[in-house]
Amino acid sequence: MQMETPYSKAITRKYPEAVAIAVARSPEGRDNPITLGWSMITSGDPPMFAMAVALGHYSREIIEQAGEFVLSFPSLAMAEAALYFGTHSGREVDKLKSFPLPTQRASSVDTVLFSDAVANFECKLDSQLVTGDHMLFVGRVVKSHVNQDADEKRLYTLKPGFVMGRAEAVPLEE
Amino acid sequence: MQMETPYSKAITRKYPEAVAIAVARSPEGRDNPITLGWSMITSGDPPMFAMAVALGHYSREIIEQAGEFVLSFPSLAMAEAALYFGTHSGREVDKLKSFPLPTQRASSVDTVLFSDAVANFECKLDSQLVTGDHMLFVGRVVKSHVNQDADEKRLYTLKPGFVMGRAEAVPLEE
Repeated sequence: MQMETPYSKAITRKYPEAVAIAVARSPEGRDNPITLGWSMITSGDPPMFAMAVALGHYSREIIEQAGEFVLSFPSLAMAEAALYFGTHSGREVDKLKSFPLPTQRASSVDTVLFSDAVANFECKLDSQLVTGDHMLFVGRVVKSHVNQDADEKRLYTLKPGFVMGRAEAVPLEE
Repeated sequence: MQMETPYSKAITRKYPEAVAIAVARSPEGRDNPITLGWSMITSGDPPMFAMAVALGHYSREIIEQAGEFVLSFPSLAMAEAALYFGTHSGREVDKLKSFPLPTQRASSVDTVLFSDAVANFECKLDSQLVTGDHMLFVGRVVKSHVNQDADEKRLYTLKPGFVMGRAEAVPLEE
């Protein structure tokens, strides 16, 4: 049975929610990562991702200017970095200098891949749309990369307050 | 270390992926549910959801015509229904007649809530955008509902081939 409740309370039923990191290169040549709770696939052929970035965020400007980005699925080992990238602004700090992570150059997009991520997708910005307080960016995947270790697990937010961890797959009982 | 790989292979690292069901009322007055693998929040204030519906699907037409929909987070008990709603077309069958589920009328949107879902969000269509082979719909939440049972778990796709189940939250070790 359903009961009406404020959105702020209802939305706490959404977890676990997959974490992603978008990274784009600034005009000054700084690779700027931002951690996102809101991303999804939005086309199968051609493959495309959608992601929402807060309108006021530095990353919103950088992604627009670059017209391209890498969308990365962080691994569990990247949890602290994801928290740092999601709670600091590239306007004030060079995030990858303050919190260095192993990276590799992307090949079709002028920014980096995260070496320890589960997967990285090089994307060309296809379209964008203002949705409330966020910019919804749509990117077409032009190149895909995965971690050599197939057992690396994606990072998820488990509950409010940036509590992150693993989402263990438990099949339904027959 | 990252290695380049075809998208079709890389994207299999995405799981678990949360399942949603969108339901909208056809001009003939039939509530038509469709199961979606691709949905996300896209604004905090006002609250908004984005979801991708295949361009050729009947539900794409119905949601456009209705200009409103309910986005539902199915519970584990709804797995079979979710599979049915996702693999049949409302052009050929009345899905809720063929696979009846307990529903309640929504109050601000002319369609139904799923009584056994984890949560239901009544949405007014705010904007839409063609993204590759899918229509990206953006809806503004006007009313929210949750299951009285706070322990109901959201349904996730665990691997390719519609394998569904639970995504158990496992916090990182300190």
